[in-house]
Amino acid sequence: MINVAVLGYGTVGSGVVEVIEHNKEQVNKKAGIELHVKYILDLRDFPDDPYGDRVVHDFNLILQDQDVKIVCETMGGVGAAYQFTRQALEAGKSVCTSNKELVAKHGPELLEIAKAHNCNYLFEASVGGGIPIIRPLNSALTAEKIEGITGILNGTTNYILTKMETEGADFDSVLKRAQEKGYAERNPEADVEGHDACRKIAILSSLMLGKTVDSEKLYTEGITKITSDDFVYAKAANCSVKLLAMSRNFEDGSTLAMVAPCMISKENPLAMVNGVFNAVLVTGNMLGDSMYYGKGAGKLPTASAVVADVIDCARHQGKVITCFWDQEEAKLADVSETERAFFVRAKAHSVKDLEAAFPGGRVLTVEGRTQDVGYFTPVMKEKDFFAKYEKLGDSVLGRIRLA
Amino acid sequence: MINVAVLGYGTVGSGVVEVIEHNKEQVNKKAGIELHVKYILDLRDFPDDPYGDRVVHDFNLILQDQDVKIVCETMGGVGAAYQFTRQALEAGKSVCTSNKELVAKHGPELLEIAKAHNCNYLFEASVGGGIPIIRPLNSALTAEKIEGITGILNGTTNYILTKMETEGADFDSVLKRAQEKGYAERNPEADVEGHDACRKIAILSSLMLGKTVDSEKLYTEGITKITSDDFVYAKAANCSVKLLAMSRNFEDGSTLAMVAPCMISKENPLAMVNGVFNAVLVTGNMLGDSMYYGKGAGKLPTASAVVADVIDCARHQGKVITCFWDQEEAKLADVSETERAFFVRAKAHSVKDLEAAFPGGRVLTVEGRTQDVGYFTPVMKEKDFFAKYEKLGDSVLGRIRLA
Repeated sequence: MINVAVLGYGTVGSGVVEVIEHNKEQVNKKAGIELHVKYILDLRDFPDDPYGDRVVHDFNLILQDQDVKIVCETMGGVGAAYQFTRQALEAGKSVCTSNKELVAKHGPELLEIAKAHNCNYLFEASVGGGIPIIRPLNSALTAEKIEGITGILNGTTNYILTKMETEGADFDSVLKRAQEKGYAERNPEADVEGHDACRKIAILSSLMLGKTVDSEKLYTEGITKITSDDFVYAKAANCSVKLLAMSRNFEDGSTLAMVAPCMISKENPLAMVNGVFNAVLVTGNMLGDSMYYGKGAGKLPTASAVVADVIDCARHQGKVITCFWDQEEAKLADVSETERAFFVRAKAHSVKDLEAAFPGGRVLTVEGRTQDVGYFTPVMKEKDFFAKYEKLGDSVLGRIRLA
Repeated sequence: MINVAVLGYGTVGSGVVEVIEHNKEQVNKKAGIELHVKYILDLRDFPDDPYGDRVVHDFNLILQDQDVKIVCETMGGVGAAYQFTRQALEAGKSVCTSNKELVAKHGPELLEIAKAHNCNYLFEASVGGGIPIIRPLNSALTAEKIEGITGILNGTTNYILTKMETEGADFDSVLKRAQEKGYAERNPEADVEGHDACRKIAILSSLMLGKTVDSEKLYTEGITKITSDDFVYAKAANCSVKLLAMSRNFEDGSTLAMVAPCMISKENPLAMVNGVFNAVLVTGNMLGDSMYYGKGAGKLPTASAVVADVIDCARHQGKVITCFWDQEEAKLADVSETERAFFVRAKAHSVKDLEAAFPGGRVLTVEGRTQDVGYFTPVMKEKDFFAKYEKLGDSVLGRIRLA
């Protein structure tokens, strides 16, 4: 038997206990040993909970119990979660987490501590919820030189964009409904401004490179400026608009990692990723594109990934599972120097200005619309695009990157 | 350094050498040790090949060389490939293969021999080419009770169906073009009759259950009877037609595994899997649906999966990688006793007969078509459906399962 402690009995933490108990037979078979949740750390008491008797309030109880070999950190945040994770790893206890903020900020350091103490720090649940994506990168696509990763990594924004696309609704009204349904937080900033997706692409990029990509240094643009008008033009161009978290390696050894809403062709497999689903498209130099798709959030999907990590820790007691992620900082490309095409929506009278500013582009008109016009620029440096875009002043109504 | 031998220098075998050499830096880093192709076994000589000097004709040379720790079996077939694999494993050499026929026929036996000799038999490349699907089942979705697996597992048939759908072309003409382009074999039977997909779903079902699903016992229907007319109705119903390899667990502990062309909603993520791409949709009781998508065949994608297995063997020298697949036979459900809805295409005058035979169904008419009519039956036992379908004689023009 292996004893497990769960830190934080919120949504994911209670899910972890539920998965271990409900799928006991499968979980224990796959682990090769019985898993037992000995402690649940929370500030609150849960007198009516079936596992309420396992709730404790003092982390030291867990830390000092030699019988606890695996800790699930499902608290979130980078304060106590960081301290507890460090202490657990230093005590030789493996830690499995869904805490993307902590992984993005202290991942390589915690991996090093784990290695030094012959235990593991695993974080499959930190990106893409229940979708296995960390494992494919670490142990399946190992023969590939990864050229890039593009993901829909935030379920809230993908739900909002899907509703805007299918119902022609505006951002504000869809956000409001998403909040009512619990698909969006009351303070939705981390999601709609792209910060959540940014942390996740920083983690994936770091694993792709084996070096550290600092999420705070990445260009991040949210979806608050996307309008239902943009979707009218996207549809006319057989495209969709998605919040993409992207990472691409250049020949010179630098990497561009960023988050931004992008117009993508309906032929792109990411275009069919709708609602709260997430997906990650990985491009390798031998395999080409492969995609991993599923529920990127939610209690049980996320908990399932945490428990898969627990099972891996149980299978690998005393052994360190290979993970390449050094503290050395990756060389990041400057987004303004990179090239791409843009979609511009502008007032109807400004076609000539657009053609003058971005020669060689393509006008997109939608039947029945007289108030505006669409324009696809040729591929150009971002800084050149924005210099000219700004100069167009009031004529332009919005712009979206093409991907 | 670890010495590797490649058995069979055909498409996949030469791809394996190419991946190891071309991605040397990544591969050796991920393996934690340098991989070196010491021997290539083939009946032919390759005097002009850059690795021609490594070609040998006698397997015993490889078998008796203590320095060879990993063997890639990329010969195909169940004759010599079986003998060589057994002998290699018995000599403690790990074997990595793309040979689905051998894995489907002797997988659990070879896994047992590997375990007994403290080495590994890995076969990621045997299903879905370069798409990681064996690893997600074995080491990622471990906290799940898997309820079912549905895959598009054959690139040739998916290419043909995609062309029929997009171009309105007939099966025969598309097959001919596919053969000219090298997407279909000159003898296309294994693909178009579903046998290839059948072996693959047998392997996935066995891994899902931890028991053996014998591919020869599975109901297998190919795509030769699908017509361009069927696609006209599929489109009208917002559906696509795909050759699905399906496996589903029932409450009574039995499993239905089968291969058949099915009509699926365009909302189903498998509907967007086009051309030579493959995908596997796995349904778990906690995670729900997750999907794995990519190139299901081809030299380099398949070789990439073989090399990923080689890297895993290198990482786990002297350790057995967990894989649940016993020789015990799984309990299979009788397809004729299972329930589903069917699409029937029939002559235009036979609506009343259809309604009488399958009451409670739904007529589907397509504007401008007078020669035939479509009908969706309610969900019913397969045997009841076929009993009634046969009785309709000349009135009916074809039927496709709904999935």
